[in-house]
Amino acid sequence: MKDNLFIIKVGGKIVEEEDSLKNFLRKFSCITAKKILVHGGGRSATKLAEKLGVESKMVDGRRITDLETLRIVTMVYGGLVNKTIVAQLQATGINALGVTGADMDLIRSEKRPVKEIDYGFVGDVKHVSAENLKMLIDRDIVPIIAPLTHDGKGNILNTNADTIAAETAQAMTLYYNITLVYCFEKKGVLMDENDEDSVIHELNKSSYNKYVNEGVIQGGMLPKLENAFASIDKGVSEVIITRAADLGINNGTRIIK
Amino acid sequence: MKDNLFIIKVGGKIVEEEDSLKNFLRKFSCITAKKILVHGGGRSATKLAEKLGVESKMVDGRRITDLETLRIVTMVYGGLVNKTIVAQLQATGINALGVTGADMDLIRSEKRPVKEIDYGFVGDVKHVSAENLKMLIDRDIVPIIAPLTHDGKGNILNTNADTIAAETAQAMTLYYNITLVYCFEKKGVLMDENDEDSVIHELNKSSYNKYVNEGVIQGGMLPKLENAFASIDKGVSEVIITRAADLGINNGTRIIK
Repeated sequence: MKDNLFIIKVGGKIVEEEDSLKNFLRKFSCITAKKILVHGGGRSATKLAEKLGVESKMVDGRRITDLETLRIVTMVYGGLVNKTIVAQLQATGINALGVTGADMDLIRSEKRPVKEIDYGFVGDVKHVSAENLKMLIDRDIVPIIAPLTHDGKGNILNTNADTIAAETAQAMTLYYNITLVYCFEKKGVLMDENDEDSVIHELNKSSYNKYVNEGVIQGGMLPKLENAFASIDKGVSEVIITRAADLGINNGTRIIK
Repeated sequence: MKDNLFIIKVGGKIVEEEDSLKNFLRKFSCITAKKILVHGGGRSATKLAEKLGVESKMVDGRRITDLETLRIVTMVYGGLVNKTIVAQLQATGINALGVTGADMDLIRSEKRPVKEIDYGFVGDVKHVSAENLKMLIDRDIVPIIAPLTHDGKGNILNTNADTIAAETAQAMTLYYNITLVYCFEKKGVLMDENDEDSVIHELNKSSYNKYVNEGVIQGGMLPKLENAFASIDKGVSEVIITRAADLGINNGTRIIK
């Protein structure tokens, strides 16, 4: 019987605002199972870029990462957001360790090939070191992963936090029974994006396809759910999409096989 | 017989410039003994502060850290500089792990009390977790420590890198035979600061006091040497002050009991 491991992803406004981040981390610290946190940076990198006069370009919700932007996300995600989370978790008695994919060679990636769009210094995940993560987790260390990876040739690459969470979840199925949780602002996947009470409580591949075809599920939710189903296909036990404030209670949308 | 452990501190221009940092890291990666790197940030935090219109205040070589400055050093030291070093070392086959004192509760500090000067969010080191560092080192992980600590109450504090190196060296004497190496731009402690060939090859407490009284040794070298002698008094085997480019060869100033 494998131990349970929760891989929890948080991003967006929750990490941008001091109070919402504190509330979230309090809930995160109450999860008694083994756990990993993967965080995004919300708009904090964009805000710093604005102050520095560096233009932020986005395509389909993915940042175009030129060299200046890479420096900014390395500072904001790898430094400010990551270490703020680590220090706050340490205060709650969680032995947090903030990492990027470069640290301990945890997540190796490859610079995305240029096709129609040149994403710049963006990495597609090639390998997650489940062994090194397990070594930490088994010592009650809680890895806090920033959305940055490396190519093994000396370069940091910007990588989508949802993807990191999914790839990490899949790799860790080797050792653990995995629950992957995506926390965001809404209560779950909604039937009507303007109605917070229209949460779809359970999605399988067939109901998902139906909702996509009907246009009920669209936009930024699509890559999140594609990641979720890919994870289920690769052995993750369940994926939960929920409001950060509801972490730990049985709410949100449950994605099953 | 204890294993040897090298604790190497680098800062200043060496970490600011891409080429000098690469050269240094190549030399660092050739050290076959167990090792820890402690890095400063050079003027990179000051440069970012300038771009953001945040004023940098220094007293006796120590930065006054207001809240805005704390955010900047957390980004620059904990993010940009630290992760750049980690990614480059990974490319040389070194299993680097970038950390601040908050990570794994490695270095706990206390906000410096306000006396004549309010240093702001600056931490004086209270405890180094030699046990956690040993756990990493014994697994061939090389800790790369940014000059940031935490107070255990959720706050990151800015801490002088020389001090972190000295405190870490002292704590690690519990498990290892320690050589503490301070790398900087000059060949060592100089008799005449304008003559690179006037290196003082060996210093003990009595010759040090003599040079201080004569005004030969002064300025920024004083806290470095005070740290060095404090470390020798607390069981560190030797302290070497040398040019970064000379790391690994027997040059520079050797501080002994």
